[in-house]
Order: sequence, then structure tokens, then C-alpha cells
Amino acid sequence: MGDRPCKAYPRTPLETANIPALDELANRGINGIMDPIKPGTRPGSDTAHLTIFGYDAYIYYKGRGPFEALGAGVEVKPGEIALRANFATIDSDDIILDRRAGRTIPEGDEFAQLIADLTFHCAPDVKPTFIHTVEHRGVLKLEGPSLSPAVSDMDPDIEKAKVMECYPLDKSPEAQRTAEILNEFFKKTKEILQESPLNDERQQNNLPLVNAILLRGAGVLPTLKTLPEIYNIRAACIAGAPLYRGVAETVGMTSINVPEATGTIQTNTIAKGQAALDHLSENDFIFIHVKGTDSASHDGNYANKVMMIEKIDAMVKLLLDNLNLEETIIAITADHADPICVRDHTADPVPIAIAGNCVLTDDVTTFSERSCAKGGLGRIRGLDVMPILMDLINHSKKFGA
Amino acid sequence: MGDRPCKAYPRTPLETANIPALDELANRGINGIMDPIKPGTRPGSDTAHLTIFGYDAYIYYKGRGPFEALGAGVEVKPGEIALRANFATIDSDDIILDRRAGRTIPEGDEFAQLIADLTFHCAPDVKPTFIHTVEHRGVLKLEGPSLSPAVSDMDPDIEKAKVMECYPLDKSPEAQRTAEILNEFFKKTKEILQESPLNDERQQNNLPLVNAILLRGAGVLPTLKTLPEIYNIRAACIAGAPLYRGVAETVGMTSINVPEATGTIQTNTIAKGQAALDHLSENDFIFIHVKGTDSASHDGNYANKVMMIEKIDAMVKLLLDNLNLEETIIAITADHADPICVRDHTADPVPIAIAGNCVLTDDVTTFSERSCAKGGLGRIRGLDVMPILMDLINHSKKFGA
Repeated sequence: MGDRPCKAYPRTPLETANIPALDELANRGINGIMDPIKPGTRPGSDTAHLTIFGYDAYIYYKGRGPFEALGAGVEVKPGEIALRANFATIDSDDIILDRRAGRTIPEGDEFAQLIADLTFHCAPDVKPTFIHTVEHRGVLKLEGPSLSPAVSDMDPDIEKAKVMECYPLDKSPEAQRTAEILNEFFKKTKEILQESPLNDERQQNNLPLVNAILLRGAGVLPTLKTLPEIYNIRAACIAGAPLYRGVAETVGMTSINVPEATGTIQTNTIAKGQAALDHLSENDFIFIHVKGTDSASHDGNYANKVMMIEKIDAMVKLLLDNLNLEETIIAITADHADPICVRDHTADPVPIAIAGNCVLTDDVTTFSERSCAKGGLGRIRGLDVMPILMDLINHSKKFGA
Repeated sequence: MGDRPCKAYPRTPLETANIPALDELANRGINGIMDPIKPGTRPGSDTAHLTIFGYDAYIYYKGRGPFEALGAGVEVKPGEIALRANFATIDSDDIILDRRAGRTIPEGDEFAQLIADLTFHCAPDVKPTFIHTVEHRGVLKLEGPSLSPAVSDMDPDIEKAKVMECYPLDKSPEAQRTAEILNEFFKKTKEILQESPLNDERQQNNLPLVNAILLRGAGVLPTLKTLPEIYNIRAACIAGAPLYRGVAETVGMTSINVPEATGTIQTNTIAKGQAALDHLSENDFIFIHVKGTDSASHDGNYANKVMMIEKIDAMVKLLLDNLNLEETIIAITADHADPICVRDHTADPVPIAIAGNCVLTDDVTTFSERSCAKGGLGRIRGLDVMPILMDLINHSKKFGA
């Protein structure tokens, strides 16, 4: 949601969007700016969420893959390695033309089935599980002995670059073996996809070919004390994209399934807000994630980002209209900025507003990067967010006597 | 002193109170908000003071008891365990009716004598020392071999709950033995108090019975480098309640005895301010603690909290009238918020104002939670306070060259 002004757009999307509900939240609440990790550190979506949920990512972050897997309904057990996968378009020299193959791979697409059916020749004692999740996204999990998450990304994270070979990040035979398996996986899946008649169909429809799977974020699940254990709360999450569900489930939230929450800019934010209202009686804390602003940012699409912010505003209106703020705390923030002019995550602090009973209000009347910087919260960090919220709902423990 | 707005009181006690001197301090000084420990962490009074004096409580805090003991004039030597004690009212099932027995136990009361004279049957090699301090408060110290501070609290910190059995917090025989001794102490003292004719008198006067001693905060004294050693200052403290004197003495302050400083809402703040003025020539730093705002908060008494804040204001007026601010720095803050609507410590940041020669002033003209949030200090932490003050009086060392 957060952005920077630039020559083409001197006002940020938040400053341009019509957001009466977010402004009301800011007006009724206490506001500030928040560095998800720390000032100047560019957060990933995974490290940012982990941190905002209260876990020091420098300690607890063990790779993105396992969160994606968990969020896609793939259980990750100790010793198993999971990786984030992108369906992508490459040329014959493995140069990436589109890291997301146009974001146009419908769920249940046969491409995923092709990969899932892959007979895995490289290591007969390793079982791969491949799941297509949302749009171009997928998850690969490896089960078997002698595997290691200490392997490099194959996805260079930019276009017009070559797919990178996977190499071990330490000297262990496990990392060496895992890197070999992943290089073999890339080669084999490329062959299968390129021979598939499904791509003829895409070519006829002028869609980017789906001819590679880019892997990154190899990891294992962290072991941690969950939010219910730390704060004695019942916590739930509402999120369309698997990564966010995965992080939320890892820290002990139950996932509320909202079929219209797609993790895309088509998502139904009203359905998400309504689901939160419907499940509030059996939870002390509900986390709602909306992905679309970030997708629009990565695509450099200012209009879509403004549109998504207005969709979030409609959800916040529903919440404000139906919540009793004398009994409820509502907070809104972003996991990182993703300026239109950069098209990637930046380290800019993001605005945060917290409203509800007993909050020390301030003079801020609108919700934006610049207005919230004048608020009563000052400049806080991602790790501060959960403790502040838990203190406001009287679920925090005293340190000392 | 810090609070939150709530439905019954939309203005905090600081915003309601008539505080011309505190406002003048804010007006002439630099202001901010301060998280005693860190954002979202609810401080105890002991951890908060230790931190504000510049010591990381996660490293130096070894339990509350020894501070209470020291502040009550009971020396705590290495290996000795000290605990905070409350005279309390319980029913026949050990359910707590009043954790403070109405705060109505006069100093020098024979109840304390009863306990002090207790023949201790449980462990013949352990010598208990029991001291009644202020109101319902007391201290128990155990001297003897093979003791451990790793034992749980017996005081559940809330009313209508049962007194908890003391259990060892680690597997050592010392912790096991110490827990047994404390359980025996609770049982024996209950018998002695319940048989005492002193309680017949209280019943006739409609006062809550004094029939139990609740123990908590078992600890040993931390070893640390004192403020005089770190900053080359002569430091003194003026505080009525033992805990604060105890923390202050532990970090190297000498205690200035002010008989009218009672640690209650009846305390004479003018006498405390005058004592500070009288002892300023032989000290570089004087810490004045006023307890009454916190007691009023725990009791949920808004009017008393406002009254205490106005008594603090009168003290600050005396200081401002008699100090040369071209030669002196004066700072005011709280060790934690304790909102009337919560009746316990919360993690809300507290206001802080620093005035005196060369301070970078700001636009804040009144002293409150909300006004100070707009000040030039921004949002700082408890650990920052002493280094900032020591820098302002030119008593800090350069790091590097």
C-alpha cells in the first residue's frame, strides 16, 4: 500500500485514492509510520509478515518456501524442504521474458498436472510435490533423506536475465545433492512444458508461453512459540495468497476460507471484511491480508493500485459500520512499501493507524504516508505492532512487578 | 502518571489537572513520549526504574524482592533471597478478598511484630527477616545455605483468586527447598495472624482482616556498575516507597530521608521538593519519586490521580521558582502508564519533558500524553533517558575519538 511520490505521480496512490473510511480510522485513532524490519531494510513479504506478527525475522526466518507450501495446504514436516515456484516464460537461451507468464494461468490448469505427474528420475529416494496456487504461483516440496535448504535461488527476480543455476550455499553433501536435484527439476520440467500442446493453445490466444518453473526461497519451517501460546488469544487469518496464510498458520492462526478472496486485484474485499465480522465472536484477533496493491505495484500500474486501495477502503467502511469500537481495536498498515516508480519493495516506512476504545488520539485526519508521519505513535517498528495491539486488548504480560 | 482516554473520562488525568508548572516545564523544554522498556511491553515498577536509570532490565533484573528489602533498610547479601510481601485479606478457602487489606495497616503495627517474632520451624538453618514497610507492604528475607530465587509467586496479582502454592521454577534442590520453606511460611503466618486478637479490633472498626501474607518477586541483588562509577556523578534519591529507594540505592544513589514522604497519596510533595533543593549543592543528580498517582490508578480513583498530579505540579513549581535553569536540567516523566480504565500498568508510552540550559526547545506548551507526542524528543525509550540527561550536564564519555 505504501509508496513514494515521483515525477509522474507527485501524489502517492494513498494520497490520490478516495478513502473516506481509512481517513475516518486515522481521524478516530492514533497514527504513525512503521519500519517493517528496521529503517532502510527492504522487507520481503515473508520476513515483513513474520516481523509484524512479532517474530524477529533474523532469528525465525528459515526461507519463504515453507510458508508458501503451508498456505497452499501442503504440510511441511521436519527435514522437508519447500520452495516457492513461478510459472514463467523464457526463450531458448533460458532468458526470462516474463517472470509470471502474464499472471494468466487459471487455477486447475493442466500445466500443474503435467508437473505433478512428473516421474522424477534424478534422485529415486526423493519425492517431489508440486502444487499450483494462485495465478503464476506454485510450491515445490521435497521429501527424502539428506536434503538441505542451503541452496541458491534459480529465479533472478528480474526479467531479461538468465535463469540461474542452483548451487549449494554451504559445503555439505546435502546442499550439493539438493542443488543437483533442483537443477534436474528445472531441466525436466522445461522439457515437459515445452512439449505440451497446451502452449500451442496459449500461442493462438496471444498469451505468454508457460515453459519454465523458476524456483526460489528454499527453506524449512521455523519452530516458534505461537501467538495463542504467547498471548493466550484465539487468532485467525483471512488471506487469498498462500504465502500470507502460510506465515499466519505458522504463528498459530487458523485460516478462514473465503472463496472470493483470490489474492489478485479481482479479490472481493467486502467478502473478506464480512468473513472477519462473521468470525469475530470466536476469535480475539483476526488478520486480513489484501495482496492486490502489491501486485499492482510490481506491475507499475498506478491506476490499479489506487483502485485496490479504494477496495480496501470499502472493506474498512464495512468494518467500521459493524464493529463496536468501544470493544474492538482495528489497525491498518502495510507489510512494506512498493513504489510504482520502483516496481519492487522498498524500505520506506509505511503508515499505520490504530483506532478503538481508549486509544490516545492525535491530530491526524487522513490516512497516508505523509499525514501519518505526524501522528502520536511516532515511528515504530514491525516488531512493536503485535505487542502494542495485545497491550490495547489487555492480553500482554507484565515484565517485572 | 500516564493514562489513556476512555468513555467515562475522555480527557486523561494529566489533561484534566490544573498544572501550570508542568506546562511551563513543557513550554520551556523539549518534550516527547517514552516507552519505559519498549513499545508494547508492560513494565513493572522495578524493571521500569532499572531501565530508566540506564540498566537493561533483561540483563540486570533479578527479581523485585531485593529492591524492596534494600529500600526498607534490610541489607541483602550474596546468596540471600528477598521477596515482596503484602498483608492481605483472604477467606477460609484462601481466596483473596483484598490484596492490600484496605491499605490500612499503620506503621509500627503489631501485626508485623507477630511475624517478626515467628519461630521458624520449617528449616532450622534458615533465618527469615520480616519487615513491614508502607501501608500493606512488607519484605521477607531468607538467610541460609542452599536457597534459590527460582520460585514462583504466591500472590496471583488479582482478587477473587486463590493464593497460589509456591513451586520451584527449575529442577534444582535449592529451588525445591526454597518453595517448601515459603509454603510453610505462608501456612504458619496465616495461623498466627488468624489467632491474633488484633483482628478482633479491626472487625469492630469495620476494617478488612489482616490474615495472610502474599509473597512475590523472589530475587537476589544484581551486580552492576553504579551511576557514580559510570558517569562520575554524586547521585541521590528522594522516595517514600521502599521499592524505589531500593532500586535507586542499588544503582548507587544515596537515600535522602524525608519523613513526610510517605509513599502514599498523603505524601508531602513540597517537603520532597524542598529536600531536593536543600541537597542539590552536594549532588549532581537527584531523583524524586512520587508514588501516589500509581496507587490512585490501581484503585481506579480518577479524582485522586488528578489531585496527586496537582500535588506534583506544586512540587515542580517550587523547583522552578528556586532553581537556576541556566545551570540545572530538570526532567519529568513516569515509569509507566496506569490507566484508570485498566487499573494496572499498561505499555502506553508516557510523556517526558526536559527543561534547562541549552535544551533544544519545541512547540509543545502543555504537559500531557497527547501534547508531548508532538515534541522534539520524538519517541524514545527508558534506556535513553539517563544518557540524554548525563549528556546535557556534560557527564557522558565520548565513544570513539
